[in-house]
Amino acid sequence: MAVAITAPVQAANDDSKVTNFLLGNGMEVVVLPDHRAPMVTHMVWYKIGSADEPPGKSGIAHFVEHLMFKDTSNHTAAEFDQAVADIGGSKNAFTSYDYTAFFETVTPSALEQMMDFEADRMRNLILADDVVKTERDVILEERRGSIENNPRAVLDEEVIATLWQNQPYRIPVIGWRQEMENLNRADAKAFYDKYYRPNNAVLVVAGDVEPETVEALAENTYGKVARGPNPSPRIRPIEPQQHTRRAVTLSDARVAMPGFSTQWVVPSYHRAKPGEAEALDLLAEILGGGENSRLHQELVVKRGIATEAGASFQGTALDATSFSIHGSPRTDAKLVDLEAAADAEVARIAKDGVTDDELDRAKNRQVRSVMFAHDEPDLIANLYGSTLATGGNVQDVIEWPDRIRKVTADQVKAVAARYLVFDHSTTGYLLPETEN
Amino acid sequence: MAVAITAPVQAANDDSKVTNFLLGNGMEVVVLPDHRAPMVTHMVWYKIGSADEPPGKSGIAHFVEHLMFKDTSNHTAAEFDQAVADIGGSKNAFTSYDYTAFFETVTPSALEQMMDFEADRMRNLILADDVVKTERDVILEERRGSIENNPRAVLDEEVIATLWQNQPYRIPVIGWRQEMENLNRADAKAFYDKYYRPNNAVLVVAGDVEPETVEALAENTYGKVARGPNPSPRIRPIEPQQHTRRAVTLSDARVAMPGFSTQWVVPSYHRAKPGEAEALDLLAEILGGGENSRLHQELVVKRGIATEAGASFQGTALDATSFSIHGSPRTDAKLVDLEAAADAEVARIAKDGVTDDELDRAKNRQVRSVMFAHDEPDLIANLYGSTLATGGNVQDVIEWPDRIRKVTADQVKAVAARYLVFDHSTTGYLLPETEN
Repeated sequence: MAVAITAPVQAANDDSKVTNFLLGNGMEVVVLPDHRAPMVTHMVWYKIGSADEPPGKSGIAHFVEHLMFKDTSNHTAAEFDQAVADIGGSKNAFTSYDYTAFFETVTPSALEQMMDFEADRMRNLILADDVVKTERDVILEERRGSIENNPRAVLDEEVIATLWQNQPYRIPVIGWRQEMENLNRADAKAFYDKYYRPNNAVLVVAGDVEPETVEALAENTYGKVARGPNPSPRIRPIEPQQHTRRAVTLSDARVAMPGFSTQWVVPSYHRAKPGEAEALDLLAEILGGGENSRLHQELVVKRGIATEAGASFQGTALDATSFSIHGSPRTDAKLVDLEAAADAEVARIAKDGVTDDELDRAKNRQVRSVMFAHDEPDLIANLYGSTLATGGNVQDVIEWPDRIRKVTADQVKAVAARYLVFDHSTTGYLLPETEN
Repeated sequence: MAVAITAPVQAANDDSKVTNFLLGNGMEVVVLPDHRAPMVTHMVWYKIGSADEPPGKSGIAHFVEHLMFKDTSNHTAAEFDQAVADIGGSKNAFTSYDYTAFFETVTPSALEQMMDFEADRMRNLILADDVVKTERDVILEERRGSIENNPRAVLDEEVIATLWQNQPYRIPVIGWRQEMENLNRADAKAFYDKYYRPNNAVLVVAGDVEPETVEALAENTYGKVARGPNPSPRIRPIEPQQHTRRAVTLSDARVAMPGFSTQWVVPSYHRAKPGEAEALDLLAEILGGGENSRLHQELVVKRGIATEAGASFQGTALDATSFSIHGSPRTDAKLVDLEAAADAEVARIAKDGVTDDELDRAKNRQVRSVMFAHDEPDLIANLYGSTLATGGNVQDVIEWPDRIRKVTADQVKAVAARYLVFDHSTTGYLLPETEN
């Protein structure tokens, strides 16, 4: 049984209709039809990420994501891989602070089979002890390769741990090594059983398919998985008010390109007052979104002291999130001068605001990028999935371009002044050993 | 029934014998007789502190400490207070990362009554909703007064949150305001019921009393409290290896005396390899323990750039702990110069070690300070209680002077070189607003 929770609505992109409903077991479904290419992206989003992990068990969310690629009581892992390979499709997964997602891009005729496999591994993983142990070595090796062998990643990890004084986003998604080393089958099983349930998941299907087809297939596959206990509200430790300016420095002989990055705690779409997150998105665009941005123009083009400079805002998060600026100096420039110049650009917006012209251009770029996303089933599926997994709904995605268009220059100035305060910021410095 | 777990042993101080036994319900008892004054210090240590709190419930350990001063089903709070006041005694309590302790200093004849009151509030607190709400305002006001109105305390709180990237010592003992505001009766009750049990407590009685008397009284009071479930092992998130140098700066117009403090993660007695914690204690003494220390001599006396400078090592901790140096510049000196000079003293020990002469003097001062502690029932009770609440035992306290005497100059140099590495240190800067 499916329960429509919103009527089909016209999306920003004329080509696509968004259909959103619940299966009888509580699994939410979003269908984004787009018939321009004979492909379909099939994603299952679990509302569980590293920020939900129990204390001392960092890495368990990502570890379970890995273990989802192992044998179930119905299928070997190889069968699923082979089925996707046979049709020239692809499959993968990712884990973040707030969600874990699994996806396949395949021909429409393979959709039901994908649903079968995904629905199967939602509840039927074997989680054998030897498999768990072997895969633990894999995630430890992944940590070595992606973090520990990379000074920039090591620095980022400690900048994040410094930026957040309380909120669990401070803990690396991949986990702290000493805790990963102790993750075991019981941890994996408890996590899997608690969170891998249809009523804690969102199915997003985008591409060459009709909502009615998806609904019928979903009922026939996911719909047969028993509803789990009601998920607990995701109430996690939140960030206290911050009062200090923090600096985190890593010096390493392997650093070829020094750089800095300053971060602030800011509200996410889920936590912001109306318009604030939209203003932060536009602020990031104006300040550091590409080659027309203030940071690029001032530091790279005009003053020629930076090889790159930019800004970003990660609005899709269940709790408070971060806004950052970053830059790398040219070899003949000093990092301290670059940082001062970048800070001055931030301060200038906080004091004088932005022009209507640059605001309009920023709005156009942001709205256009979402329009483009509608042309790529995997991008649009990501947009809906990440929003729904972080406290948002379908309407939030659909109405977002309108909300962006309504942001005023005063609002952009206000969020810069309110949130980008250097007295409570965290800056990371990546330096070659000689500069230490 | 009492189970002797060590025979009475001669302590460092000739006057005192240490007796250590378990009551039948698992409560540990330490008796430290000292008949030189007709007073007795009676302490109950619970092996529970802020580092054991559930996520998002910071402050609950300290809150429950406060609530322990409220009515029980047998006595009003006023009765206990009045009983102590009537005999001119005193009573108080404190909460730390690893333990919560309650104590009274009274005449020996009042000991049984104190035990009665303490045994009663171990299990019979009423925890009425209105009492909980009123006391929550008290702890919030305490936070305001002790932390929020004091720039140095605000800075310390964020330095600590930065020093520890994972270990719960990063969270303030008093709690983060936004979490304290939500602590309620159910949180307090759950915490109280889980941890306030005789088999999670250590009774320390020091002063004018005999072990046999204490045993009889303890059996008759605490002994009647039912044993609780076995306490879970205190396995808490531990600190990952650190790779960055961090700085935390607070500028505030109220700052009259600027200063810096640099901290490192080092092993505690409970976590250290043999001799390392003892060497760290001596290093702190040599580097910054009082007016003969290197930091004081060099910075305050010889160079005259500091009003004060020192070092400290907090060895009594269940998990990894911190070592710190600190200093405040004279008004005509620059903080940056003072810090550089202090860092040079640290680097000098790590490179060249310490002299046998200063090591001997440091040993003498440390051993003597413990000897002196034996003269003060409250100090010696503290020493045993804090050790037993952080994974140590009576023998550890007794043998400590001998272990200190065995430390070599090479061992002191080695811990300085191994642990006091600036590339993974955290420094706090307290500045007047004008210097920002």
